[in-house]
Parts: sequence; C-alpha cells; structure tokens
Amino acid sequence: MAALDQLIDALRRLPGVGPKSAQRMAYHLLLNDRSGAQALAATLSQALSRVQTCARCHGFSEDPVCGVCSDTRRDPGLLAVVESPADQAVIERSGSYKGYYFVLGGRVSPIEGRGPRDIGAEALLHRATDGQVREVILATSFTAEGEATAYLLGEALKAQGLLVTRLARGVPVGSELEFVDLGTLAHAFADRR
Amino acid sequence: MAALDQLIDALRRLPGVGPKSAQRMAYHLLLNDRSGAQALAATLSQALSRVQTCARCHGFSEDPVCGVCSDTRRDPGLLAVVESPADQAVIERSGSYKGYYFVLGGRVSPIEGRGPRDIGAEALLHRATDGQVREVILATSFTAEGEATAYLLGEALKAQGLLVTRLARGVPVGSELEFVDLGTLAHAFADRR
Ligand SMILES: [Zn+2]
Ligand SMILES: [Zn+2]
Repeated sequence: MAALDQLIDALRRLPGVGPKSAQRMAYHLLLNDRSGAQALAATLSQALSRVQTCARCHGFSEDPVCGVCSDTRRDPGLLAVVESPADQAVIERSGSYKGYYFVLGGRVSPIEGRGPRDIGAEALLHRATDGQVREVILATSFTAEGEATAYLLGEALKAQGLLVTRLARGVPVGSELEFVDLGTLAHAFADRR
Repeated sequence: MAALDQLIDALRRLPGVGPKSAQRMAYHLLLNDRSGAQALAATLSQALSRVQTCARCHGFSEDPVCGVCSDTRRDPGLLAVVESPADQAVIERSGSYKGYYFVLGGRVSPIEGRGPRDIGAEALLHRATDGQVREVILATSFTAEGEATAYLLGEALKAQGLLVTRLARGVPVGSELEFVDLGTLAHAFADRR
C-alpha cells in the first residue's frame, strides 16, 4: 500500500521516531484517530505557511518582527543569546528575564564542522553593537559545545567593548543536594556568591 | 503563536508523544526539516483519502477489496482472525500463512466495556460461515484480553460447527503479536493447535 508506506516514511523523519513507532503512529491515525490525522495535516500546512523567522531575534514569529521584539517595555540594554527557539521559550516561561533575545542557529561543533559563522555570529555582532545593548547574556547550554559557543562568541563580543555575562551554574531550585550530579555541585561551589 | 501551538497540540495526539516531545518535533520540523513537514502533511492527506477498509477482511486497503483478499492462490479454507491491521501485516511479513484474514476492531475489554459485538463478532461469524472456511485460526494476542477474545469468538465459531485453532505457544506469553519476531511467528503458525 503506497499511501500507507509513504506516511510511515514521513513519520520516521520526526525526531525520536523509529520504524516501529512510525508504523504504530500511522495505524493509530488511520484506524482510531482520523480527525487527529486531519488536524495534524492542517496544522502542519498552516504552521509552514505562517511561522517564519523574526527579523530581529531570529526566533519563531507569525509576523515580520515577533511579539517579544515588538514589546517596548523591555530593557533594550539586555540581550540574551540562546541556541534555539525552544531555549527562548523556556526562558520566557520562567518570567525571569525582561530584556531582548538573539536566537542562534544551534551551537558550534568541531565534529559536525559548524563554526561561529554557521550559527549566526556576524548577525549577533551586528545586533549587539546597535548602541543600546550594554550587556550580552550568553545563555547557551552547559555542555561542551554550548561552552565552546559561549567562549567564542564572548571573545568576539568583548572585543567590541560589550559587557558579556553567562548564566550562573548551580544547583537546580527545588532539588535535593544528594541527587545533584558532582559536576554541577563543583560549579555551584565555584560560582557561590 | 497560535499556528505553532496548534501544531504542538496536534502532534500530542500521536501515540507515545507527550508535551515535551511534541514541542521538540514541532521546532525540529519548522527549524530544520520543512521539507519533512511538507511531506508529512502531504502523506497524511493522501493516506486519509486513499486508505480505506477492505470490504472482505476489514484490514487497510487502497481498493474496495485488498490485495490479500483478491489473491485467488490462497487457501479459502483457512481464516486467520487478528486484532489489528498491524498484526495482519506482521503475519504477512513472516510468510508463514497462505490463507485469508479477518481483522477485528481490537479485542474485548470488560474494563473498557468492549464486548464481542463491538469488535465485529457478527461480521466474523458471517464471513466464517461462507461454506468455504474449514478452519478459523484465532491469532489474537496472548494477553488476558486477547485470550478472552479468542475464547468468546472460539465458542461462537465452534457452535457453527467450525474447526477452531489457536496459534501455538511459540509466542511469548504477555506479548503483543505486533512486536514478536518473525521466526517465532512462523513456528507458532506451524504448531497451531
Ligand atoms: Zn523577535
Ligand atoms: Zn482484505
């Protein structure tokens, strides 16, 4: 059955979905949830045509400039640099930040041959030197690649005379010390305030 | 962003996909794999319009009667009863069976209030008493619900004077047919009792 096999192939392109899951999903949609399948096809088409990249922060937006970048009550002196729209979204949900964002196209990776230029370093330097930004907060991941990204971008930004900071490394709020990994604990000690 | 949130909601309806996976999938599709998103929307629409139910076995088909049911080289005396098109597909792939199929609409479940009537027992009795079927192989799962289904359908079929068999215990107890390896399945067909 060509139509069924093609659907299974398309579902396999979703992250974290192997051949068995894809088959289960396809069968479920066609057998038990045709309205769900219809909704998925419709919302995919709609998102593809409506969701674009914000010209200012490069995050997701349905308008040329996104709601966050259009919000004039934010502090134009603060610019948070994140790796992805997902990271931007989680910071927004935390309600802890009232500046603007710059969304990178991922993080540098020597293994995958991705350097600062490939993730938007030039656009970031242009954005950060608009005369209003006074502090760039590097909110990349605390992984090897995230740290390398922060280091490389940080050097370039400091060369422009900007104040560059990094999110504090520490023990997650609400967690028991006992269950915190040792690396995190070591950093929490080093960064104690 | 309405379009993005609606896509995430639609992805959450996929089996095994929670809110975090749905968000990761949506971001991945819009950020890194727009052609994959396009393919998924297109194949979903196509499958919804083309994949229907076979009038004879009630499995999936792009034609009024499916390829298996249309194959006249099969043994019309054998009818295998399965719980789903997925189970039918895995038996076909095992190459161990050359009769025809009847695909139930799931299995009986006292907890979910699903009796034999709800999974197509009447249509099965009608199909099995066509005068050609001599043996009905109950290939439902070896789970409590699958066994109950086999028992209830078996009694009704025996009352019509039909020979009723069950797949051999080569299939590990407690497992879903869909996830059984093909060799085990082939033995289970040969040893049916
Ligand atoms: Zn923006
Ligand atoms: Zn059929």
